Amino acid sequence: MFEWIAFDADDTLWHNEALYQEGRERFEAVLNQYAFEDDLHQALNEIEIHNLRYYGYGAMSFVLSLIETAIQVTGGEIEARDIQALLDLGKDMLTAEVTLVEGVQDLLADLSQDYPLMLITKGDLQHQLRKVEASGLEDYFRVVEVVSEKHAGVYRDILARHQISPESILMIGNSLRSDIRPVLELGGRAIHVCNDLSWAHEETDIPEALQPNYREVHHLADVKDILVRWQSA
Amino acid sequence: MFEWIAFDADDTLWHNEALYQEGRERFEAVLNQYAFEDDLHQALNEIEIHNLRYYGYGAMSFVLSLIETAIQVTGGEIEARDIQALLDLGKDMLTAEVTLVEGVQDLLADLSQDYPLMLITKGDLQHQLRKVEASGLEDYFRVVEVVSEKHAGVYRDILARHQISPESILMIGNSLRSDIRPVLELGGRAIHVCNDLSWAHEETDIPEALQPNYREVHHLADVKDILVRWQSA
Repeated sequence: MFEWIAFDADDTLWHNEALYQEGRERFEAVLNQYAFEDDLHQALNEIEIHNLRYYGYGAMSFVLSLIETAIQVTGGEIEARDIQALLDLGKDMLTAEVTLVEGVQDLLADLSQDYPLMLITKGDLQHQLRKVEASGLEDYFRVVEVVSEKHAGVYRDILARHQISPESILMIGNSLRSDIRPVLELGGRAIHVCNDLSWAHEETDIPEALQPNYREVHHLADVKDILVRWQSA
Repeated sequence: MFEWIAFDADDTLWHNEALYQEGRERFEAVLNQYAFEDDLHQALNEIEIHNLRYYGYGAMSFVLSLIETAIQVTGGEIEARDIQALLDLGKDMLTAEVTLVEGVQDLLADLSQDYPLMLITKGDLQHQLRKVEASGLEDYFRVVEVVSEKHAGVYRDILARHQISPESILMIGNSLRSDIRPVLELGGRAIHVCNDLSWAHEETDIPEALQPNYREVHHLADVKDILVRWQSA
């Protein structure tokens, strides 16, 4: 059925979007000292998406986009001490404690007895590796891969490198766009954890033809039920 | 003697420090519009080293440190449009053309006929992968590894993952601290390309006991001679 189980990390195993949400709130509090007419949320989102081509994903990318957005919406009026507040906010994000999603320890302890587990995460290399270490989950994973993008070609390369056929992998994650769809396209299975934490940029549709190998759960703890049902099918 | 040859990338295969030098000059030109008493070079260097713990290595880390240094040395007087100039400088670095070091193509074409080659580079994941692709050198390498730090433990993990014993590797690079010393410590061989391009942070000493497996060249093209001499020894 499948021989390996791969997990996404941010917002699948530990909370991440909550940190970005807090970052956006601190950003708004700084900017609200200034008069401006733009929709702050929309301006930031546009600059973030545009800047992915330069910076990729992660907290450093986010803080560089916060600074650019602040300069743009204030028409260059923002003061240096407020830009320093944005730098400080970024450092707080990069050193924030890792808070596990409920049920992670039990699930990984259980699944790692029957399957080799792999972690596939995208973002800043140093920050992602630090979070893996701080999570205390590292020993459950036989393989940890940090990538700059998660499209089908990247998954194909990772699996080839570990001599795993795409049909024998199950991927579990919270992003339809980065975790689920590319793995289904390669012929693998995937379970989407819909925890309402995802950035809109991470949404996509799952075509009808790919649905048979695809399941949805609302809590990570429900993954085990799906596996039992698949195995007894 | 050795079974694999590994290369560093920045300032070993392609020019990199020249871009940072240009970045520092543009930074100075921006800052020289302001009155300040600090030694700009020293202030930047201290902030860069301090920020490695947050940002790791690479161009995003560099531009975030430029902004912080600019705010600090001007006592918060720097204007937002000048901080935008620093963001622009960072994007120029991230999209700069890759200029190969002289003789790289010939050396890799030659060595890749006799040895599997590996690339081990540290920095921003997305930026490093883009440079590998833009270099046109990707096909010479059987393995490409981007890491956040280059100490002995990191090399040990990479080699274990590819089932290569440390004694059977030759590492070639321009940084004594990141490329040469850790590989010698593990029992491998190393050739230092002293091209005067390294950041002072990348210097270190090579202890007497490790010197027998260590050679120095001034041009990448001279690597082949060392190999021939080692093989006939």
